[in-house]
Amino acid sequence: MGEWLEAGPERIEALLVTPRPAPRVERLLRLAEERGIPIEHIANGKLRSLAAPRNPQGIAARVKPFPFADLDDVLAKCESPAMLLALDGITDPGNVGAIIRSAAFFGVAGVLLPSDRSASMTPVVERSAAGALSRVPVCQVNNLVTTLRQLQEQDFWVLASILGPNPTPSELNLSGSIVAVVGSEGRGIRPSIRKLCDYRTSLPASGRWKGASLNVANFTGILLYEIQKQQIKSVR
Amino acid sequence: MGEWLEAGPERIEALLVTPRPAPRVERLLRLAEERGIPIEHIANGKLRSLAAPRNPQGIAARVKPFPFADLDDVLAKCESPAMLLALDGITDPGNVGAIIRSAAFFGVAGVLLPSDRSASMTPVVERSAAGALSRVPVCQVNNLVTTLRQLQEQDFWVLASILGPNPTPSELNLSGSIVAVVGSEGRGIRPSIRKLCDYRTSLPASGRWKGASLNVANFTGILLYEIQKQQIKSVR
Repeated sequence: MGEWLEAGPERIEALLVTPRPAPRVERLLRLAEERGIPIEHIANGKLRSLAAPRNPQGIAARVKPFPFADLDDVLAKCESPAMLLALDGITDPGNVGAIIRSAAFFGVAGVLLPSDRSASMTPVVERSAAGALSRVPVCQVNNLVTTLRQLQEQDFWVLASILGPNPTPSELNLSGSIVAVVGSEGRGIRPSIRKLCDYRTSLPASGRWKGASLNVANFTGILLYEIQKQQIKSVR
Repeated sequence: MGEWLEAGPERIEALLVTPRPAPRVERLLRLAEERGIPIEHIANGKLRSLAAPRNPQGIAARVKPFPFADLDDVLAKCESPAMLLALDGITDPGNVGAIIRSAAFFGVAGVLLPSDRSASMTPVVERSAAGALSRVPVCQVNNLVTTLRQLQEQDFWVLASILGPNPTPSELNLSGSIVAVVGSEGRGIRPSIRKLCDYRTSLPASGRWKGASLNVANFTGILLYEIQKQQIKSVR
């Protein structure tokens, strides 16, 4: 709750407070007042039915849904070559935010988040994104496999990052319109996407320090950097 | 304290506990016992003189200093071309850890941290580094400017990341031995290092989304990736 008030107050419609909230709620009410957020009073029983069953503090917030963008609108505004980024199963909100920040920097036209395996758009994502959520459009897609197939029909190449002895991004020709797909550090990309992708890529560790690995947000930054570099060269 | 017990127990020599610690200390004592950390009893007054003056929980830890590496040892083991990384004024422990993780991945021979403007090597750094602190040597240097001059005499090129219209890393010849210097997102690199550096580099934003910026750990990952790529090519 404090996190929402500090980092995402514009998405809070109202605070809902019971007649006798916990003492530490005072600070939250002061914060809400400073930010001009309405405070509504609510009966204990009603709060329990609305919010999670356990709510020892006696306070909840009514939050606006995250303003996801429409993929068709994003595609209509794409220039060629275009760059899209899909996150498959990245649930760590700090990583999702950091990735969206890099996506904005490298001019990604839109970020695709599957509705089934993703981090929720919480204030932790917003904080890590450092303002980028209001810049780059984020689209929620119900079926990422179907969406990727549709993008392939619209002349996008699907580039999947998959562990293994694959070409590095700089060894591939990424100068056309690309939708890059990155998976979670633990499980990677789901098999159905591995099957349909046009290119597979990975970055090998130098081998100097045994067992070294790369954070998924750092990997994604490098991938977007490489795509941007090749796309700019192809336009010049 | 909980953070140290969870993420850095091997650096805790002993827990120091007063006769009547706070109730929540119980959990910490159980954690310490599970990890085989000795628990020593200490008088209230003595704890106050040892630890921070305010210590309402009545518990402290005696922690081993971080095992910094010796720069001469690191240099003795360097192959040519070598890659070193210096962090100037990066105080966010999450960023320092993430950077050290990428440094291990790309085969950096050693990371230089100035003793005056750096994050302390806390468990937050260790957690973000995901094991890399036990892989890549980290050296503490008292005077980064002097150290960089000495490295220049030993045929290292000093590459500084500086905001502005500088060449991108791929536009530079980075195939020799390089010490890359990155600064904090807010203040950048100190002027005395800007003066002595051999190369300046920066990455331009795509310009598609106004005001977009890159996280320093993500920027550093891209820089190390580019140096590694050029150094490998030069050896082949």
